[in-house]
Amino acid sequence: MKIFLTGALGVNGLSVLRELLEAGDEILATDIATDQPLPADIAKNIHFEPLDVTDGEAVDTSVRNFKPDAIVHLAAIVSLDVPVALTYRVNALGTINILEAARRNSVGRVVYTSSRAVFGQFDGDFGPPNYRPVPETFRREAWPGAFGPYSASKIMSEDAGTQFAERYGFEFTALRFASIYGPGKTLRHGAVGVHSRIVEPAVRGESVTVARGGDQIDDMVYIKDIAQALRKAAHMKVAPKPAYNIGSGVGSTLTQFAEAVRKTLPDADIHIGGGLDHLGVVDRYGIFDNSAATRDFGYQPEYDLTSGVADYVKSLKEDALLS
Amino acid sequence: MKIFLTGALGVNGLSVLRELLEAGDEILATDIATDQPLPADIAKNIHFEPLDVTDGEAVDTSVRNFKPDAIVHLAAIVSLDVPVALTYRVNALGTINILEAARRNSVGRVVYTSSRAVFGQFDGDFGPPNYRPVPETFRREAWPGAFGPYSASKIMSEDAGTQFAERYGFEFTALRFASIYGPGKTLRHGAVGVHSRIVEPAVRGESVTVARGGDQIDDMVYIKDIAQALRKAAHMKVAPKPAYNIGSGVGSTLTQFAEAVRKTLPDADIHIGGGLDHLGVVDRYGIFDNSAATRDFGYQPEYDLTSGVADYVKSLKEDALLS
Repeated sequence: MKIFLTGALGVNGLSVLRELLEAGDEILATDIATDQPLPADIAKNIHFEPLDVTDGEAVDTSVRNFKPDAIVHLAAIVSLDVPVALTYRVNALGTINILEAARRNSVGRVVYTSSRAVFGQFDGDFGPPNYRPVPETFRREAWPGAFGPYSASKIMSEDAGTQFAERYGFEFTALRFASIYGPGKTLRHGAVGVHSRIVEPAVRGESVTVARGGDQIDDMVYIKDIAQALRKAAHMKVAPKPAYNIGSGVGSTLTQFAEAVRKTLPDADIHIGGGLDHLGVVDRYGIFDNSAATRDFGYQPEYDLTSGVADYVKSLKEDALLS
Repeated sequence: MKIFLTGALGVNGLSVLRELLEAGDEILATDIATDQPLPADIAKNIHFEPLDVTDGEAVDTSVRNFKPDAIVHLAAIVSLDVPVALTYRVNALGTINILEAARRNSVGRVVYTSSRAVFGQFDGDFGPPNYRPVPETFRREAWPGAFGPYSASKIMSEDAGTQFAERYGFEFTALRFASIYGPGKTLRHGAVGVHSRIVEPAVRGESVTVARGGDQIDDMVYIKDIAQALRKAAHMKVAPKPAYNIGSGVGSTLTQFAEAVRKTLPDADIHIGGGLDHLGVVDRYGIFDNSAATRDFGYQPEYDLTSGVADYVKSLKEDALLS
């Protein structure tokens, strides 16, 4: 398959590129950033083009020239330290530009990276202490505070994709990711990447303290399972649902995450305070019900905390990119 | 007050301009359309500039030059016969451009025209047969079908306004309008304007048939009450809530609307079929609870169906615009 990828140099890009290459796809990778080189094993096997998804004409031209079978749209702003308008222009308008380019150039499928940020507070049975796995039908709601623009633009993009698909007759699938961990979060997402703030100093032999949140149950999913889900969604023939939850399906705490780090790095000096909500800006945690993704396109998380962290530490030593 | 108005030549623009002029405001009126002249009584008392709200730099320049105290943002695409991308670019990106211009140029207040289209189906007590008035806290949800892009872009815009206001410290107020009737709908909104499809042929002495929907309870609010609400919201010192419902507060049927037309035009030949949902594309009707708008900025609907229709008929004879 010919796959057009946006956000190729973002957190998920590298893993997705490797997944798609292993599947034998022909790839045009795009990104607005050119600050990091692609690893040589990837760079020699793909095409790369700089692309700003807010530029509708550039997106259209790039898609028209490559003639992809599918677009995998990862490009988005996650950082909280940017103007509100920029988050909307990239995340909302950028998605409209991608969808419009798909329509104009008869691309058969668009796979969109959505997020747990579309969901309202996981309350009732879905919150503590029961943490019943959250299905796709759970209510969507823009988050309060700093994550609000990210959240609202993801909700709008899910709706827009569904509407384009219905009106113009192509396949649209949004994958809503749980809390992703893996290399690249520190560079691209800053303080939001709490797992990286634990693993990466530990690899460097530095001590780590996270002041609070060690008791918070969350669904932590390794970046290579995200890549698996994106590959399978891109290759799916027909998407029965417009949106799928993608997580580990398991609830874990940061204290358990730190224990997993110690299995790979026995000398790691990690201190995790107790309580809930480590970041103080995200108050929405829970466990994802992955059963629809398993049923419709065979998604099966392959990494638990121990194997995920071990692979993460190994990747940090191998890839210059995003460490 | 200095007020910057977008969508001045749209359905609500003319009524709003007259309201603001009567309140003594200095007005810069903008619109992308220049197909209709403003009535002379308005044109000589305001400034007018052509403006495309999707052009962020043009919006910023125009706001910077005029230095308004408040922006009243009416510009939006309502028609269903346009590309999905255009609805999003005008209604979602256009609002971001307005909000960003307000931020950059220290405008103290933005009043946004939202819609009943942000609400999900009025079900339970809020639907038939009880039609309990719907409060602002009712759940929001993108509509299915052709109204979806309008609906989703209004939801996103409400959220974006609230987030800009919170982050940058200006006042944002969204007014969610019920089913508006009045002159201008035929030209600007096409078949969506069912009330115009009854009144305007009747004025011309033509017979009118609406095949179905005569029993549907809906909240029909006259365009001059919309203008009242926008004026009062623009002049409000502090807005306690980010969004307010604006309707008549009364449930009426199209059959009752036709009776109101016959009071002004006794010879009108109008046939309204029974049943619900006249348009077949909108399945969400109910009654709006206006009490928050009344409490916080003194909104009081002044028109009932009889006086609203009488004024509508009178306006059609007076204004060349939008008839």
